[in-house]
Amino acid sequence: MSSTEISTLGEFGLIDRLTKELTTVNASTLRSVGDDAAVLSYPDTDVLVSTDLLLEGVHFDLTYVPLRHLGYKAAVVNFSDIYAMNGRPRQITVSLGISKRFTVEHIEELYVGMRLACQIYGVDIVGGDTTASRQGLVISITCVGDAPRDNVVYRDGARDTDLICVSGDLGAAYMGLQLLEREKVASAGQKDFMPKFAGKEYLIERQLKPEARRDIVEQLAAAGIKPTAMMDVSDGLSSELLHICHDSKVGCRVYEDRIPIDYQTAVMAEELNMNLLTAALNGGEDYELLFTVPLHCHDAVSKMPGIKVIGHITREELGCALITADGNEIPLRAQGFNHLAQ
Amino acid sequence: MSSTEISTLGEFGLIDRLTKELTTVNASTLRSVGDDAAVLSYPDTDVLVSTDLLLEGVHFDLTYVPLRHLGYKAAVVNFSDIYAMNGRPRQITVSLGISKRFTVEHIEELYVGMRLACQIYGVDIVGGDTTASRQGLVISITCVGDAPRDNVVYRDGARDTDLICVSGDLGAAYMGLQLLEREKVASAGQKDFMPKFAGKEYLIERQLKPEARRDIVEQLAAAGIKPTAMMDVSDGLSSELLHICHDSKVGCRVYEDRIPIDYQTAVMAEELNMNLLTAALNGGEDYELLFTVPLHCHDAVSKMPGIKVIGHITREELGCALITADGNEIPLRAQGFNHLAQ
Repeated sequence: MSSTEISTLGEFGLIDRLTKELTTVNASTLRSVGDDAAVLSYPDTDVLVSTDLLLEGVHFDLTYVPLRHLGYKAAVVNFSDIYAMNGRPRQITVSLGISKRFTVEHIEELYVGMRLACQIYGVDIVGGDTTASRQGLVISITCVGDAPRDNVVYRDGARDTDLICVSGDLGAAYMGLQLLEREKVASAGQKDFMPKFAGKEYLIERQLKPEARRDIVEQLAAAGIKPTAMMDVSDGLSSELLHICHDSKVGCRVYEDRIPIDYQTAVMAEELNMNLLTAALNGGEDYELLFTVPLHCHDAVSKMPGIKVIGHITREELGCALITADGNEIPLRAQGFNHLAQ
Repeated sequence: MSSTEISTLGEFGLIDRLTKELTTVNASTLRSVGDDAAVLSYPDTDVLVSTDLLLEGVHFDLTYVPLRHLGYKAAVVNFSDIYAMNGRPRQITVSLGISKRFTVEHIEELYVGMRLACQIYGVDIVGGDTTASRQGLVISITCVGDAPRDNVVYRDGARDTDLICVSGDLGAAYMGLQLLEREKVASAGQKDFMPKFAGKEYLIERQLKPEARRDIVEQLAAAGIKPTAMMDVSDGLSSELLHICHDSKVGCRVYEDRIPIDYQTAVMAEELNMNLLTAALNGGEDYELLFTVPLHCHDAVSKMPGIKVIGHITREELGCALITADGNEIPLRAQGFNHLAQ
């Protein structure tokens, strides 16, 4: 890989280079990069706006995260927020703070990943800001999406007796992070170190290259099911479920033996002597969809691939609890990823 | 001021505290903070999206920038981008990266400034992201605005013989920065240091508390004048004018003796032995509007308070030049603020 100092291009040269290949696919994108603002058109739908700030050393470690994957993930986690509202992502703006150790080629790698994510999910890059940073890499992405009128799903719509559903499986991204951290420690100071990832590829992929569950949102729409509440699982199942229950003024019961967990996640928890249930409930970064549907949807959602019914909504005074495999009831607590907590 | 560690509240507690007083004023804001995305409605207008990333140590120095002013400015510079498209700002999302030395009260101060700006300009805070930072304060704001169909003004619409206009005056914000830097150096190590700002209040205000030129956009609309091209002056007049000429495939002539400069700016340049014209052309952060109008609008714009005709658009092959007070022609060059340049 050649190595071009960013200062040789300057801000406008860098932006030109990063955006010259950009094309747009959405009819709602009237004008893209190159002016003070992007111009969009949403005459017939609600407009969704979501934003995410990723900081080096807090959200990612470039020791083991390739820039291409980082770009992909930074885009996808924003798409995930839009799907979690039952919408479709359409545009993103990308702001980058770049410190001196990054070259033009580095930033191009990051863009390759973002462009790939945009291509796969049908999203246009329509603007942004690029600036120097004294503090490592800063990535701020804002995603604009749309949803047909009255189709948006909020956190506050869950009702007593609704079923609680989750897509995919939980805890794998967190275990992938533990694995990457372990191998980083093991590699310290060693030349030609080969990390031991055999048999754990799924965990690595879940951490480094998560996907947003467009398929689930489309599947529900095709079946005519509109969830009563929905969130994506970024901070951990417990934390998200407590949000839904708090905002909807309801309680919940979820069943330990219904929580979907991949085999590799279980093996890894065993190997690291960690509590598997804690990882699945509080691990974070799964980017699965957690949603509630009316009870009469039971047969329909039970048949859908990739969706598991894990419990049900109760009246508020019953509180939020997990029913363990041996039948005990323990209160749900949010121990999720919280960078600002003590 | 009391001092509450952010870790005692955690991310969600901090967000609750910052957003509990937020109300919304725009009909286009259907749902604000509190879900995975904000929900907006723009059935009859084009939607404008602009974004800005501000990093401590690069864009601001908290030695002399009060957090309240910083919040105000961070919001206003985004509004300015929307006005520069002939639009009206309606919503912002605010992402903050916060390092350990900031308390809850610090972040509340920042929000006081942002809320004040939003109140004055009629903008709703609808979402964002709040996270820990290892690297000082990070502020990323995305602004959504609207403009009636076919009313958006781009950079590429300037035509031969159009008049070049600018609002307000130029170079004062840059001189304000020089003054603040000078007093910072002078204050080093001194207790009870009193900075010398007497007679230079305007420069300080232009640097610390800039305004977006909503009044100009409204004035032009009231007179039925739609500019052919427009930008806000953030990087400096020369840089912005070259952007308009490049994108519009035209040349330009601007006249030194027409460039609007405040008396305090001139005095300060003299005092610092700096070239006044260079400061006015390349200073940056003026957040004035630079725009072009058809020649037949001459009488109308000439009569408008706060607008100055500084030159005219030419055919592309004539290039971009400044006509000095003594009649010489010198090529315009972009020497503006460019954090990523050599």
